[in-house]
Amino acid sequence: MSRCGSPLVARYDLFAAAKTFTRANLAAREASLWRYSELLPVRDPANRVSLGEQFTPLVPMRVLGDELGMDRLSLKDEGLLPTGSFKARGAAVGVSRARELGVRAFAMPTNGNAGGAWAAYGTRAGIEAYIVMPKSAPAINKVECVMAGAHVWLVDGLISDAGKIVARAVAEYGFYDASTLKEPYRIEGKKTLGFELVEQFAWSVPDVILYPIGGGVGLIGIYKAIRELQAMGLLEERLPRFVAVQAEGCAPIVRAFDAHQNESTFWNDAHTVAFGINVPKALGDFLVLEALYESGGAAIAVSDASIIEMQRRIGESEGLFICPEGAATIAAAYELRRRDWIAPHDRVLAINTGSGLKYPEVTIPELELLQPDATLRIDSGK
Amino acid sequence: MSRCGSPLVARYDLFAAAKTFTRANLAAREASLWRYSELLPVRDPANRVSLGEQFTPLVPMRVLGDELGMDRLSLKDEGLLPTGSFKARGAAVGVSRARELGVRAFAMPTNGNAGGAWAAYGTRAGIEAYIVMPKSAPAINKVECVMAGAHVWLVDGLISDAGKIVARAVAEYGFYDASTLKEPYRIEGKKTLGFELVEQFAWSVPDVILYPIGGGVGLIGIYKAIRELQAMGLLEERLPRFVAVQAEGCAPIVRAFDAHQNESTFWNDAHTVAFGINVPKALGDFLVLEALYESGGAAIAVSDASIIEMQRRIGESEGLFICPEGAATIAAAYELRRRDWIAPHDRVLAINTGSGLKYPEVTIPELELLQPDATLRIDSGK
Repeated sequence: MSRCGSPLVARYDLFAAAKTFTRANLAAREASLWRYSELLPVRDPANRVSLGEQFTPLVPMRVLGDELGMDRLSLKDEGLLPTGSFKARGAAVGVSRARELGVRAFAMPTNGNAGGAWAAYGTRAGIEAYIVMPKSAPAINKVECVMAGAHVWLVDGLISDAGKIVARAVAEYGFYDASTLKEPYRIEGKKTLGFELVEQFAWSVPDVILYPIGGGVGLIGIYKAIRELQAMGLLEERLPRFVAVQAEGCAPIVRAFDAHQNESTFWNDAHTVAFGINVPKALGDFLVLEALYESGGAAIAVSDASIIEMQRRIGESEGLFICPEGAATIAAAYELRRRDWIAPHDRVLAINTGSGLKYPEVTIPELELLQPDATLRIDSGK
Repeated sequence: MSRCGSPLVARYDLFAAAKTFTRANLAAREASLWRYSELLPVRDPANRVSLGEQFTPLVPMRVLGDELGMDRLSLKDEGLLPTGSFKARGAAVGVSRARELGVRAFAMPTNGNAGGAWAAYGTRAGIEAYIVMPKSAPAINKVECVMAGAHVWLVDGLISDAGKIVARAVAEYGFYDASTLKEPYRIEGKKTLGFELVEQFAWSVPDVILYPIGGGVGLIGIYKAIRELQAMGLLEERLPRFVAVQAEGCAPIVRAFDAHQNESTFWNDAHTVAFGINVPKALGDFLVLEALYESGGAAIAVSDASIIEMQRRIGESEGLFICPEGAATIAAAYELRRRDWIAPHDRVLAINTGSGLKYPEVTIPELELLQPDATLRIDSGK
């Protein structure tokens, strides 16, 4: 972070990079985020810290798309990255750069998935990870941080309290501060999501991209990726219309967008089942809003009830068990389709930020218990 | 399954396939299991049922390898497949072939991960899935089956009781029987694990492959893949030494191997923390044993305590949160290294069959709870 408190953003010599960063060269490289090395901040390949960041799939959603009136709906499933969420992109690149800079230990506050990812990559890099999370954070995230060898504390408070404890530890022990947007490199990792989707759309962009917004770094990363590709002459100038998706119980970006403001204000009493987007004020809010305004995009809040219903519906129609944050993007797409903001034939891309497996507490109906000599009774209506 | 009760195995015209199944052609195709289509039983690409089966990474384990005295130890992380386990390979191909055959509904018993995978792919194919699992199956597997839209029952008994209920339902309703090795296609899907690793080892095989053995279909699949590649002249004749890894509380293959037998006998009172290998008698046991004998391999049982300790150690040294079955293979490698059955410079490949995220009940130490105004106390010894 700069001294004034605003995020730093990495810049590259795009003219030099364009000599080797070509469509043909990329296609011949391994299908992992490291294929974009010219536009990543890790100079020496020996410093790459990897748990196997393969491409994530673009999954067509034909059945659900038909039901919702969108015939080109697809989902990019980031839950198949190491540690089960898109946070792996930021951690892989952020930790690699930290290793290149000689970092021996970092500290960070987390609500969940970011901690799991940074713990795993930190350990793999031989860097000590000091992580503070609210005691209300999901059990699975506590488990994965500990299992990945991090030093973990809970705080009887919010993520902002965890952040203050981390800030004191950074000052006292000289730890590298790995908090969101206090280092400029995790956004460079998230950027690879944008490069990947452009390649998967055959060097084009979809008409609409929906992203669940907590800190917003994922959307900022995609936007930055597209702008860099355009500057290099690798992509037409057209932008996708970005949609920031939030929960009704925590929608600071939506409120700012509706009021045509350039930054958001703190959202009091934030709450939603989609824990990953329960962020009352994002440090990069102004960058998210810029991407929305520039692209003719939108910001929309959906209810927890619609998120839960859509999560189940996605499973029943497409076989995908995705996280509530991902389900929120489809619920938002449906609402925007009903308003005719999305047209029936638009190419609509929803980003699923994590695996449903990271939310084991989801409620399901009670299952019938059979005795060993029983026979199945299949309801005729099914 | 044939009428005599033994598994059927698919055969191909390898001479015809070899015309297009070449190293160069494969390298130019998408990095997914569908690149091996000439040797898969799905004839029409329109019948492919996919949730995005990208290549799984080969992860070097240099830190842990050094500690354990193996300088070329690596792990293939199957936990990054859709539904979080290697079962996705068998389900993707098995369900696709079922769709091609016109199947409208299938039934199967499961202890866990197979059910999650078949539920997901079944729903995606528009095929009804009827699944019966022991009431003691992990909660996460019940959740994922239901969330993927399957019809799920519990049985107050074992997997064998679930199997009998399924058999009655198959007879009564005419369902397709999707039980392990009662259809010959899931092994064809698992075979792609073998093709992938051969490509990742630059068209060679490692010296040793360790696999956690429950039903054993994964190991059988790798063995079949290597034999097919050899028959096509794409791979040297040398086999890797296969190691069947089981738990001390359920080790029928190990007992049969030690007695030089060609099939196993039922293991009474089977129990282990590694739920996925808690199989007292595998239908394909004779195929597993054949692969062990043919390759000069081994069978070894490890204790639950060593599995749990190794699971933690893998996390702390490599940052990987893998499943207990996967951890068992590394514990076995360590033991075989101590016996000098594995040499220090052998290329050793361990297969991790699933994500640690599917085992959220793992025990971790109690975490210290801080007040918001606290400062971190870092132990000087850490």
